[in-house]
Amino acid sequence: MSEYEPLTPASLPKRLGGLSAVADAVGGAPEAWSVEEVGDGNLNLVFIVGGSAGSVIVKQALPYVRLVGDSWPLGLQRAFFEYNALIRQETVDPGVVPAVLHFDEAQALIVMEHLVPHIILRNQMMAGDRVAGLGEGMGRFCARTAFRCSDLHMATDKKKADVALFSGNAELCDITETLVFTDPYFDAELNRHTTPQLDSLVAELRANEALKIEAQHLKRAFTARAETLCHGDLHSGSIMVTGDSVRIIDPEFAFYGPMGFDIGMLVGNFLMAFHATPAHVADRAARAAYQDWLLDVTRTTWTSFAAEFRTLWERERTGILYPRTLYEDQGHEAASKRACDQVLAEIFTDLLGFAGVEMHRRILGLAHIAEFDSIEDSDIRAPLEAKSLRLGRDLVLQRRNITDIDRLLGLARSSETGDNI
Amino acid sequence: MSEYEPLTPASLPKRLGGLSAVADAVGGAPEAWSVEEVGDGNLNLVFIVGGSAGSVIVKQALPYVRLVGDSWPLGLQRAFFEYNALIRQETVDPGVVPAVLHFDEAQALIVMEHLVPHIILRNQMMAGDRVAGLGEGMGRFCARTAFRCSDLHMATDKKKADVALFSGNAELCDITETLVFTDPYFDAELNRHTTPQLDSLVAELRANEALKIEAQHLKRAFTARAETLCHGDLHSGSIMVTGDSVRIIDPEFAFYGPMGFDIGMLVGNFLMAFHATPAHVADRAARAAYQDWLLDVTRTTWTSFAAEFRTLWERERTGILYPRTLYEDQGHEAASKRACDQVLAEIFTDLLGFAGVEMHRRILGLAHIAEFDSIEDSDIRAPLEAKSLRLGRDLVLQRRNITDIDRLLGLARSSETGDNI
Repeated sequence: MSEYEPLTPASLPKRLGGLSAVADAVGGAPEAWSVEEVGDGNLNLVFIVGGSAGSVIVKQALPYVRLVGDSWPLGLQRAFFEYNALIRQETVDPGVVPAVLHFDEAQALIVMEHLVPHIILRNQMMAGDRVAGLGEGMGRFCARTAFRCSDLHMATDKKKADVALFSGNAELCDITETLVFTDPYFDAELNRHTTPQLDSLVAELRANEALKIEAQHLKRAFTARAETLCHGDLHSGSIMVTGDSVRIIDPEFAFYGPMGFDIGMLVGNFLMAFHATPAHVADRAARAAYQDWLLDVTRTTWTSFAAEFRTLWERERTGILYPRTLYEDQGHEAASKRACDQVLAEIFTDLLGFAGVEMHRRILGLAHIAEFDSIEDSDIRAPLEAKSLRLGRDLVLQRRNITDIDRLLGLARSSETGDNI
Repeated sequence: MSEYEPLTPASLPKRLGGLSAVADAVGGAPEAWSVEEVGDGNLNLVFIVGGSAGSVIVKQALPYVRLVGDSWPLGLQRAFFEYNALIRQETVDPGVVPAVLHFDEAQALIVMEHLVPHIILRNQMMAGDRVAGLGEGMGRFCARTAFRCSDLHMATDKKKADVALFSGNAELCDITETLVFTDPYFDAELNRHTTPQLDSLVAELRANEALKIEAQHLKRAFTARAETLCHGDLHSGSIMVTGDSVRIIDPEFAFYGPMGFDIGMLVGNFLMAFHATPAHVADRAARAAYQDWLLDVTRTTWTSFAAEFRTLWERERTGILYPRTLYEDQGHEAASKRACDQVLAEIFTDLLGFAGVEMHRRILGLAHIAEFDSIEDSDIRAPLEAKSLRLGRDLVLQRRNITDIDRLLGLARSSETGDNI
């Protein structure tokens, strides 16, 4: 079968049973496979397929946005971009993303490793459970993809070819461009927010002209700064964890963008989890300790990123930017380190901006997060959301003046005091 | 014939005589055509073909860098990128580039309008002759291409498709990345400079770590900031003029890059012409007047750019960036104007940086300019080149503090006083 057709639990064993890469991993007769559709995301069909040897994930794109329905058509090519991102991420940070067992472009489907017993990081955080090595792993992944997919490391013709390839992922970029950077800042049709409690704060944010300008400056960076291969959607729902394992999934939004984009979106998610914790962890001491842990993860995510980036700068700076011929080979090691510091400072500034808009769009836009949405009492939810909205605003507006991670954590701590909307 | 073969004056009439678009423009029997090879650039064959009806230019890429010889191979695809840039430039600023009569991708050749009686701007400036409307025309061209080929104006899927297309022009980008941004800042093999007079200044510049860092930051902007379709090589040798006409040629270096790149390279060329004028205009009063004119052209290039950019911002902001839905439609006209001012300020900062590196590479790198190279007495040439080297350094290092065109012109005037190397 080459014409696209969505899989069903009933059709899947027959359609995929003949693929040895899949059959070997699952094991047993295809007609005996268990197939469960578990897609809880916004865009795709996701099946867990189990057999005598083990289980695999089958992910198939749907020709529309699942969250909204078939009134919002969406091209199937995103599976092609997800596949291309997965194989590159595997190369630059081996073992972090699921192993790809099979890719079928026409069917827009990827068969991949089933991560067991991993759960979504967002659920782990709502349960108040920790993940050893979370910040280290995420910072390292972000640094490795940022560095190794850029002109700091790649041969520039290959980097330009990848820029060209991922430029085709325009439809998914359009979703981010619209839903993250624009819709939250005016009364757009798809928006929703906790009402009436947040109405006046939302009105205040949408009347803040400096904020609206900065959000569009950040959008311009998103659309034009083809620095590196970004995951494109690196929030707490794209990370699978156990108590001591961190894996990253779902790079279908992959694009060439700013080095600070992925880590910025991620930090925005950590900060929202920080604000939401009081609704999920009842015990006062446990709550404070968990919030401390979330800030520690935020800190470690950045320090791990910076440390890994510096190491790669020293060891793998084989691209056309800041070449050793110009620095180390001339005895100018200090200049090389200073250049690295300046690039990291710029990434940190961008991180803050992208974190801020992510915090806004998850509370004001179409796609919300479970940490807040699962709080049924809107009088409890709204004040917590308000903290994220205000901190997000400060990060966007003050990002050029927040020059280190301690200052960011200080702002997060200050934002946590007080219960006013 | 489909396999690539370089044209010769003898073979050209036979090979192109059967193309009606060419035959009609030239007129008469092909065997009666006059064919003259006039390529004085660094990369291509260029023929003027004349007949009873008129004349055309035939430009054919060679599979190597003409300036260096066949030891430096270079792909023929650059004719494809030149053609694609020409037709886009014609769309966004009609009548400025030569009309394309015929394009043959396999032969890497473009037949185009012969600009008569235009001469290269560089020669016009060395003769001390003016061009009415030069700054206005160039500023307008740069603004129209910058704005209309960006996400400020284009549909974003089309813009991303053009980013992908021009990402293929990696070989010519590599020339700029190497020769403009890197080689001048260390003792690279292809470099040359006026020696021994400039040796100590050159050593000083190459020991300036801040300068070398900033040059690479600018290179990073060149490689990663896919903001708009740049001409890519907009120096005074890519502009054809009469006393009152301005036309732009040779966009084979076209790429998606920073909005300030083309206008910055151009301003660098105006400032070098300003420094070189004493060697070309003997009469003291005429020399001062011509230098005033060159600074006036520099000013007008920027003010015309800014004015046109603001007009397009008001009238043609149909892309995804800074959408009217977010500003004007919310009664936030002032925010829209402020955003435009901030984007222009960023472009001006970039302009200064790119002007500075252009001034360096034309004196320290492989490809020099006739304004300086034609000065036979190196004791006259060196002090003038030194002025450009120092001003270039100041523009690169101080660009974030030089916030308006008057300050730039003031620095240019100061750089002109004193004769020290």
